Amino acid sequence: EEGEEEELRQRFMAPPVSGLRELRRRRRELRSRMELLIMETQAEVCRALAALDPGAAFAVDTWERKEGGGGISCVLQDGDVFEKAGVNVSVVFGLLSEEAARQMRSRGKSLRAKDGKLPFCAMGVSSVIHPKNPHVPTMHFNYRYFEIEEADGTKQWWFGGGTDLTPTYLNEEDAVHFHKTLKEACDKHDLKLYPKYKKWCDDYFYIKHRGERRGIGGIFFDDVDSPSKEEVFQFVKSCAKAVVPCYIPIVKRHCHDSFTPEEKLWQQLRRGRYVEFNLVYDRGTKFGLLTPGSRIESILMSLPLTARWEYMHTPPKSSKEAEILEVLRNPKDWVH
Amino acid sequence: EEGEEEELRQRFMAPPVSGLRELRRRRRELRSRMELLIMETQAEVCRALAALDPGAAFAVDTWERKEGGGGISCVLQDGDVFEKAGVNVSVVFGLLSEEAARQMRSRGKSLRAKDGKLPFCAMGVSSVIHPKNPHVPTMHFNYRYFEIEEADGTKQWWFGGGTDLTPTYLNEEDAVHFHKTLKEACDKHDLKLYPKYKKWCDDYFYIKHRGERRGIGGIFFDDVDSPSKEEVFQFVKSCAKAVVPCYIPIVKRHCHDSFTPEEKLWQQLRRGRYVEFNLVYDRGTKFGLLTPGSRIESILMSLPLTARWEYMHTPPKSSKEAEILEVLRNPKDWVH
Repeated sequence: EEGEEEELRQRFMAPPVSGLRELRRRRRELRSRMELLIMETQAEVCRALAALDPGAAFAVDTWERKEGGGGISCVLQDGDVFEKAGVNVSVVFGLLSEEAARQMRSRGKSLRAKDGKLPFCAMGVSSVIHPKNPHVPTMHFNYRYFEIEEADGTKQWWFGGGTDLTPTYLNEEDAVHFHKTLKEACDKHDLKLYPKYKKWCDDYFYIKHRGERRGIGGIFFDDVDSPSKEEVFQFVKSCAKAVVPCYIPIVKRHCHDSFTPEEKLWQQLRRGRYVEFNLVYDRGTKFGLLTPGSRIESILMSLPLTARWEYMHTPPKSSKEAEILEVLRNPKDWVH
Repeated sequence: EEGEEEELRQRFMAPPVSGLRELRRRRRELRSRMELLIMETQAEVCRALAALDPGAAFAVDTWERKEGGGGISCVLQDGDVFEKAGVNVSVVFGLLSEEAARQMRSRGKSLRAKDGKLPFCAMGVSSVIHPKNPHVPTMHFNYRYFEIEEADGTKQWWFGGGTDLTPTYLNEEDAVHFHKTLKEACDKHDLKLYPKYKKWCDDYFYIKHRGERRGIGGIFFDDVDSPSKEEVFQFVKSCAKAVVPCYIPIVKRHCHDSFTPEEKLWQQLRRGRYVEFNLVYDRGTKFGLLTPGSRIESILMSLPLTARWEYMHTPPKSSKEAEILEVLRNPKDWVH
C-alpha cells in the first residue's frame, strides 16, 4: 500500500481516474495504456514547467463527473515565468445519444445504437501555456482517444491530437526547432504524417473573421483510426513525448529576454485573438460548453489570464508586429 | 450647400449613409425616419459621453459596404472616464439568400423569394460603453429595423432592440433608476411592454455555461411587427430617447468614486464574462462574424479594452462580489 502511494506520487500529479490497480489489471488494454500515457504526459509537462518557475506551484484539482469518470486539472497561475499554465487530464465514460456521438466525430460515420444510446469512453490530456514574457510563445497540445460501442458489440475507436505554437513575435530559429521536433516524432512512423498534419493544423486554427491563423501551427489530426490501433497509439505516444523537447528549450532561451511595454501590449492584443479563436471556432471548447456535466473551469483554463482588444489596431508596415501577422496570414514551411 | 453642411455637423457625427438630400426627399418613408433616428441617437449619445470625458475624443470612421450601404463607427478609447465606448450606425442593403433571410429572423417566418434572392434593408444603431471605474456599469443598447421584399412585392418589416446594464458591483439605486427609466419609456406605449421585454432581456443575456446573466438586464425585443409600423417606430423612438437619461446620471454619480485594486480586478473578471457572452452566444455578433462583407472592427468594438480569466475564482460568501453574482443568477424585479 505505502509503496504504491509512493509510486503514485513520483509518477503522477494525482491518482489516475480509473485507479492504479484497475489499470494494472487491464494493462494490455489500449484504454489503460492510453490513460497511463496521458497521466505521464501531464506529470512530465507539469514538472518541466514548474522547474522553470520555482516561485510558483501547480494547483492540482481532481474532479468527478456524475455521469461517469472524472479528471485532474493542474493549473499554475501568475508565476514569474508563466502567466497561466494548465495541464488537464480527463477520462469520462457513460452513454452517448446518437446526436452527441455524431458531433464527436469530425467525419460523420454512421453508428448503430441500441435503444438510441451508445456506451462510450473519451480520454485525453490537454494543455495551454501562456507565458509572461512576450518573447516566449504560447503553446497548446492535446492528445485524446475515443471508443464507442455499437449495438452489435463492435467498438469504433479513434485518436485525435496536436501540438501548436502561438508566438507574439516571430523567431525563425524557434519556429524551425518546434516544427523539426514535431516532424522527427512523426517521421518515425510515416513520412507522410508531418506534411499532412502540419497542413491540417494551419487549416484548423484559422480565425476566419480575421483572415489569420491563431499561431504558427505545428500538427493537428482528428478521427484517426488507421493503420491499426497499436500503430496510431505508438504515433500518439511519440507526439506526447515530443511536447517537452518541442517547447521547453524555447522557454529557457527567452524567459529572461528584456521587453518593452509596447511588446507587452502587442502580446495582450494577440491574447485577444487567442480568446476569439477558442470561443468562436474551437470544436473542443464549443463541444465542452454545450455538454451537460462538463467541467467549465477545466475547459476555459485555456483562456489567458489577461487579454486586450483595441479598435482598429494596425501595426506599422515592416514592423516586428507586421512580420508575425504576415506569417499568420500566409503559413510558411519551416522544415524544408 | 454651406447651410446644409453646417446642419450636418450640428446634428450628426458624419453624413448619413443615404445622404441628407435623399432622406429629405423620402422623408415620409419609415426607412428614412428610422435612419434619421439612429443618426440622431448616435450623435446624442456620443455628445453626452464626450461631455463627461473632456480629455478624450471620438474617432469617427465612415465605411462603405461593397454589396450596398455602409456605416459610421464612433469610438472613444482609453479616456479618463471610459475605457472603450463605441457607438455604431449601419445602413446596409442588397440581396439576401433565403438561408440568410431565415437566420435574420428569430422566429422563422416563411419568405417567398424570386430566383432565391430577397431584396433587403437592415439598419441600426448599436453601442457598448465600458467605463474605467468599476463603480460605473457597462451599458449596451441597440435599435434596429429590417425590411425584406418578397417575390410578389409585399414587404415584411420588423424592429428589434434593447438597452441593458452590466455593473461590476450592485448598486440598487442605479438598478432601480435604470429600469424605471426604461419602464416609463415603454409604459407610454403599452403597459404590457416593459414586463415582457424585461423578461426577454433576462432570458437573452444568459451565459448558459456559467449559469449567470451578463448583467442586471433592462429590455430586449426582436422581430416585433405589431400593432403597426408607425406604433412600433414610436415605441423604438421612445426607447432610443431614453438611453441618455437611463445611463448618464449613473456615470455622473460614480465616475469619481474611489476604488481599490481588488475592485478593479473583479471588474476585469466580469469583463471576461462579457467577452464569453458576446463571442459564444450573442446572435448579432455571430451573425456579423459569419456574414461576408461585414465590418469586423465595428462588430468587435463591443469587446472591452481589457479582460481577465482566473482559474476557479470564487468570491467569498457575503462579499460585494457574491452579492452581484446572486443577482446575475436570480434576476430581480427592480420596479415593483
